[in-house]
Amino acid sequence: MIVPALGQFASGTHHFPVRVYFEDTDLTHIVYHANYLRYMERARTEMLRALGIEAQAMLDAGHGYYSVHEMHVTYLAPAKLDDILTVRSHVVQVRAAATVIGQDVWRGDQPLTRGRVTAAWLAMNGRPKRQPRDWSVRFSALMTEANAA
Amino acid sequence: MIVPALGQFASGTHHFPVRVYFEDTDLTHIVYHANYLRYMERARTEMLRALGIEAQAMLDAGHGYYSVHEMHVTYLAPAKLDDILTVRSHVVQVRAAATVIGQDVWRGDQPLTRGRVTAAWLAMNGRPKRQPRDWSVRFSALMTEANAA
Amino acid sequence: MIVPALGQFASGTHHFPVRVYFEDTDLTHIVYHANYLRYMERARTEMLRALGIEAQAMLDAGHGYYSVHEMHVTYLAPAKLDDILTVRSHVVQVRAAATVIGQDVWRGDQPLTRGRVTAAWLAMNGRPKRQPRDWSVRFSALMTEANAA
Amino acid sequence: MIVPALGQFASGTHHFPVRVYFEDTDLTHIVYHANYLRYMERARTEMLRALGIEAQAMLDAGHGYYSVHEMHVTYLAPAKLDDILTVRSHVVQVRAAATVIGQDVWRGDQPLTRGRVTAAWLAMNGRPKRQPRDWSVRFSALMTEANAA
Repeated sequence: MIVPALGQFASGTHHFPVRVYFEDTDLTHIVYHANYLRYMERARTEMLRALGIEAQAMLDAGHGYYSVHEMHVTYLAPAKLDDILTVRSHVVQVRAAATVIGQDVWRGDQPLTRGRVTAAWLAMNGRPKRQPRDWSVRFSALMTEANAA
Repeated sequence: MIVPALGQFASGTHHFPVRVYFEDTDLTHIVYHANYLRYMERARTEMLRALGIEAQAMLDAGHGYYSVHEMHVTYLAPAKLDDILTVRSHVVQVRAAATVIGQDVWRGDQPLTRGRVTAAWLAMNGRPKRQPRDWSVRFSALMTEANAA
Repeated sequence: MIVPALGQFASGTHHFPVRVYFEDTDLTHIVYHANYLRYMERARTEMLRALGIEAQAMLDAGHGYYSVHEMHVTYLAPAKLDDILTVRSHVVQVRAAATVIGQDVWRGDQPLTRGRVTAAWLAMNGRPKRQPRDWSVRFSALMTEANAA
Repeated sequence: MIVPALGQFASGTHHFPVRVYFEDTDLTHIVYHANYLRYMERARTEMLRALGIEAQAMLDAGHGYYSVHEMHVTYLAPAKLDDILTVRSHVVQVRAAATVIGQDVWRGDQPLTRGRVTAAWLAMNGRPKRQPRDWSVRFSALMTEANAA
């Protein structure tokens, strides 16, 4: 197919596929640890897009942008070149000015990394800002759905 | 969908889609010039895969790997966050130990960059090596098909 | 000067300088969050080198390599293009097969990020392995010195 | 030392040192081809700084920025982890709205890559713009000095 992957929701969890390329590896033959963060960011961006939040449109409108405020990642097993991975993202907590997202990277039924990212909603000047109520509602609904699964 | 994009051939040209994420941009609001090379490498990898050449399998078997020997890129227009791009790759020349690939990045019907990459086939010790005859034949067939289009 | 920065120890803490370039930023005008991890890795590599542990030599000798097993980073304030940053690294804990390193990034007297990285010592096959006793001793000495400061 | 490398001029050529880290390598044990472009950009930025052109200050003032319009790179020999490299940059041509810079990466007295980059001076809206006459004069003086060496 010649469209990029969008991922999709299942039971409140967003599933986003990633292929491992040369650019992602280092000389130990596995994916360089910081590159999982790029996979996670791609997955978050598509999860937000699926919720109706387009990053470039928000920036163009001067609304603001999500920025990582905190993250915690544990590496369980390595990914290799040509692997097909899935980033599974689900909402863990909804705060006034931030949403906490659990993001794990899987290869098939094996978890490779476990992550938790606090995405703060910032005004264009970089200051924290209350998330639009409409979005908080959607995040909360996702969280409820994931918790119920 | 939850599989990564593979791209596909049309008239001897391989079309591979790429989405632009935060990681790809720099503070001038556009895609950082070196990141187009990552897009191009993803596209080459999938083009080779479609031809039956899997990079990790070749490395595991101790066969060798393709390495960029030369590249030439011209930047015509910038890509932005959230853009969907297509890398169009076609074989330009088949040599004993290298294949020259033309790789242009488009956004819809607008060309953004024009590139030409010489991919040398190297033994595991890094020395140039004659490409498997079978592959040269496939590359040549693609080239003929693209030229005819 | 035409030698790369090595950093230096002061009171058990390793100080390593980093300049912010275009490659490090994203369209929000600040350093992309995952790129701080690259700064931290550079600083760890130089801290180890200063302790007599050269990564390439260890790999060539088939000894093993340090790999990130866990990390936790908090982002307090953003870095911008042309900024000169300092990564301050200190040993937090020495385990049998891993060393925990606190790594904060500062701009002058302002902390920008706070991080904690667990670096596991792995055999060439990727399995955890007891760190050489000699190194544990050096890490512990550094930790003692940092705690006393 | 705890300041980042600035590089220095010698006979009209700017010499900038780079250390190779894990982030720079790929699974073939050598520096990933696109990462040389990052080294080259760091070197260009410091060459410009040495000439009195600070990128962030130019952006803050709304003056504009240099953007790669074209590049051509040939890879002669690979760089490995822990290598200390030097990027040697010299002005090749000064045009109204762009400067062409030759940028080669060396390890000791061995050239690893040869590159040529056309850096276009762009207005904040991304359109080509005449370079400040003062800078053209400095670039031309450097070119004359390099040619005479």
